[in-house]
Amino acid sequence: MASPTALWGSAVFLIYFRLLLAYGPRYFSNQRNLKHVSAQIYYDYTTHYFYQKIDHFGFAEDATFKQRYLVSDKYWSETGGVVLFYTGNEGDITWFCNNTGFMWDVAEELKALLVFAEHRYYGESLPFGDHSFSDPKHLNYLTSEQALADFAVLIRHLHETIPGARNSPFIAIGGSYGGMLAAWFRMKYPHMVVGAFASSAPIWQFEDLVPCGIFYKIVTDDFHQSGKDCSESIRNSWKAIDRVSSSEEGLQWISTAFHLCSPLKNSDDVGAFKSWLSETWVNLAMVNYPYEAFFLQPLPAWPIQVVCKFLTNSNLPDRELLNRIFQAANVYYNYTGQAQCLNISQTATGSLGDTGWYYQACTEMVMPMCSDGVNDMFEPQKWDFPTFSADCFKMWGVKPRQTWITSVYGGKNISAHSNIIFSNGDMDPWSGGGVRKKISESLIAINIPEGAHHLDLRSKNVNDPASVLKARSLEIQYINKWIQEFRQRS
Amino acid sequence: MASPTALWGSAVFLIYFRLLLAYGPRYFSNQRNLKHVSAQIYYDYTTHYFYQKIDHFGFAEDATFKQRYLVSDKYWSETGGVVLFYTGNEGDITWFCNNTGFMWDVAEELKALLVFAEHRYYGESLPFGDHSFSDPKHLNYLTSEQALADFAVLIRHLHETIPGARNSPFIAIGGSYGGMLAAWFRMKYPHMVVGAFASSAPIWQFEDLVPCGIFYKIVTDDFHQSGKDCSESIRNSWKAIDRVSSSEEGLQWISTAFHLCSPLKNSDDVGAFKSWLSETWVNLAMVNYPYEAFFLQPLPAWPIQVVCKFLTNSNLPDRELLNRIFQAANVYYNYTGQAQCLNISQTATGSLGDTGWYYQACTEMVMPMCSDGVNDMFEPQKWDFPTFSADCFKMWGVKPRQTWITSVYGGKNISAHSNIIFSNGDMDPWSGGGVRKKISESLIAINIPEGAHHLDLRSKNVNDPASVLKARSLEIQYINKWIQEFRQRS
Repeated sequence: MASPTALWGSAVFLIYFRLLLAYGPRYFSNQRNLKHVSAQIYYDYTTHYFYQKIDHFGFAEDATFKQRYLVSDKYWSETGGVVLFYTGNEGDITWFCNNTGFMWDVAEELKALLVFAEHRYYGESLPFGDHSFSDPKHLNYLTSEQALADFAVLIRHLHETIPGARNSPFIAIGGSYGGMLAAWFRMKYPHMVVGAFASSAPIWQFEDLVPCGIFYKIVTDDFHQSGKDCSESIRNSWKAIDRVSSSEEGLQWISTAFHLCSPLKNSDDVGAFKSWLSETWVNLAMVNYPYEAFFLQPLPAWPIQVVCKFLTNSNLPDRELLNRIFQAANVYYNYTGQAQCLNISQTATGSLGDTGWYYQACTEMVMPMCSDGVNDMFEPQKWDFPTFSADCFKMWGVKPRQTWITSVYGGKNISAHSNIIFSNGDMDPWSGGGVRKKISESLIAINIPEGAHHLDLRSKNVNDPASVLKARSLEIQYINKWIQEFRQRS
Repeated sequence: MASPTALWGSAVFLIYFRLLLAYGPRYFSNQRNLKHVSAQIYYDYTTHYFYQKIDHFGFAEDATFKQRYLVSDKYWSETGGVVLFYTGNEGDITWFCNNTGFMWDVAEELKALLVFAEHRYYGESLPFGDHSFSDPKHLNYLTSEQALADFAVLIRHLHETIPGARNSPFIAIGGSYGGMLAAWFRMKYPHMVVGAFASSAPIWQFEDLVPCGIFYKIVTDDFHQSGKDCSESIRNSWKAIDRVSSSEEGLQWISTAFHLCSPLKNSDDVGAFKSWLSETWVNLAMVNYPYEAFFLQPLPAWPIQVVCKFLTNSNLPDRELLNRIFQAANVYYNYTGQAQCLNISQTATGSLGDTGWYYQACTEMVMPMCSDGVNDMFEPQKWDFPTFSADCFKMWGVKPRQTWITSVYGGKNISAHSNIIFSNGDMDPWSGGGVRKKISESLIAINIPEGAHHLDLRSKNVNDPASVLKARSLEIQYINKWIQEFRQRS
């Protein structure tokens, strides 16, 4: 199989994957960074493994694999407690565990058992071990449906092995793709969880449920609102790059100006360079947190404001503008000042996490994205499903099914369900595909004006804006309501 | 692979499968009979085919197969109508279509489009054509989850191809396993149907949700209530058979007395003979209809009462008792008087329908059954999962997963769902695994004291007892309520 980088020649893949990368694979590079950041909180948990069927939906493959899950019972009450169940997404579960402070912060109040279940094909939960990604046949069991079934079967196992669990309410919690899984889990397995808290879950970023340009528009708005001429500078930078890179000398100049680890050599490299920059702006929009944080990279408080301090004049001559662009990008890549050079292939390392999410994007998770350069600050790029599909087939031998997710999970028609909180940060580009309006009395939307990507799931911070405090308080209120209703039924 | 008859040596399989056979494969032999019965109603429909993915839950297998579905639009109103969608079960869909008179009877009143969707691996909807059953790999896609996904994807297709369908409410309807599918479809795909009418759907005949003996107890009660000494005669018949068949002469005597097409030769044959008789009593309980009918066999009104006229003295000498047993069984097998001889292997013909349901029973549809000879009139037989599982593995190379159905569909914990009618006939042995009590304001139980297996789904009849008329009227009332709620939302 081709490595992800083989796709860099395809513009559609570029624009598509740089988004997915934004909330997927960087987790891994970030994880490495975290080791050097002393302020990171690490929580106490025990690690467990459970044998799951590789295939829940067929019987020819009867083998099992070890699914990892983490447990903390410090505040757990067997009689009056609740089980908060994190529906793991596309990465190592220990990382999600350590970055979901909300669950740890509410554990004592709710007398909660915390469980973090790893998603199959990520972290240590590899159905075919080292061979999980070596063959499309082995990847065949990497779907959201299989992951949800893992969660259901694991919960049965918890009922049987943890005293008190069987008679306690379970609540699904997740962020981003994990939030989608939390919501879908409540929809498909309401007998397993009394409710779901889905933070920054773009369950409507499929087919034509939302405009394909909404994601980039939100990123652009974030920059537009963070400084005069900021988004305009970025919009102008693409043509500046084209002009400067059109000569050999210009290519070299860019490589030097941006302190690139590997110099740009041709137009393919320039394409990759622009994608890398695009992804940088996207990532900044996702992690535009109100305090110093270490989510995708170590970053200052309100990083877009810091970035925009360098981008105050969109009409500078090309090289001056690009120097400013470098300084802006450098905020993201080198806040600690330790980077020797910037590596534009950093987002396509081919690590397991990348591979898994690439595969999911090429099968079920078909999220149409586009930009027009007018309503957003990016280069115009149409959503081109046929090309996307052909590229997926070349890469994995599979064809994406663009109507499947809405068929199986209901698209916008989800009013028959109950007890789901959809929270979104207004500044988070993924909020464009999220549920922003209350659907019913028990399908709640909580919007956080000052919020980026699942800010509410992060641990409390003295610099938390009022809107996220209010959101968390509402979230706990609903969770308590579900618990109360459960106790009344029992 | 071994043929189903190879399992006749296994007592567990016997007692297990004769039940499943009762509502599965006989459809096929029956279908042949129907051709000779002029009173049968045939309805007008058009036949269509839709290309379905063989595997909805994985992407390695991207091939399609033709799913058959039948449509009647005689009374359909594109603007004010409703789509009644039959969730086909384990047999040829034309047969279900012709035996679900309820849908045809209400079509005009509801301005309904009628759709009957065939279940994969039955009738003409064979994923691998003639090779669908030739290899466990080919059978791998025969699951209820795949069937439900077929229905969901087909409904999207109907939205796109039938003017008015997209904006009309769909209602799932089914009986027996088809009723289970209708209920599960509303649970898992509530965005596709505004409600489900599940007639005689034993969704709780799994694990220990109901006592494993309840099925045989209901059969026994039916006979007990239909004539003095009736169930006692049958209870006593098993030992009488054992005694008589213990000699060569006795074996011959039984073969002659029962007009068997193939004489009994050994103790295996005697086991098969007893299973065939058990199945006969079970089937009679299922089709104990109040009028002449042709469901599993052409039968008189209240056939158990007719049968019991022969079984009025349980203390007769063995051969006299067995003569009576023959006359009783003959009511079931030879009501038309055309049978030349009785064929005890009739229920294991190895036709496609049999094979499919056998496979489903050996994978997902693990329904524990037992008898004790005290609370029921059958020979004692414990539920023995390990033996059952081993036999399945021998036969198909698959292992049944006895906890899967309750994990995926919720077992008794289904109160989060809405808009499902569970109707059951008190005389139907499958009602033991059905939902007999209202779960919530929108999860309704309708019980029909004088009803056998999904009597309410049959076409109206002048001899319908009051209880089924009342049931149908309630069912239509709820369906109208769902439609009304849908129109209010739209």
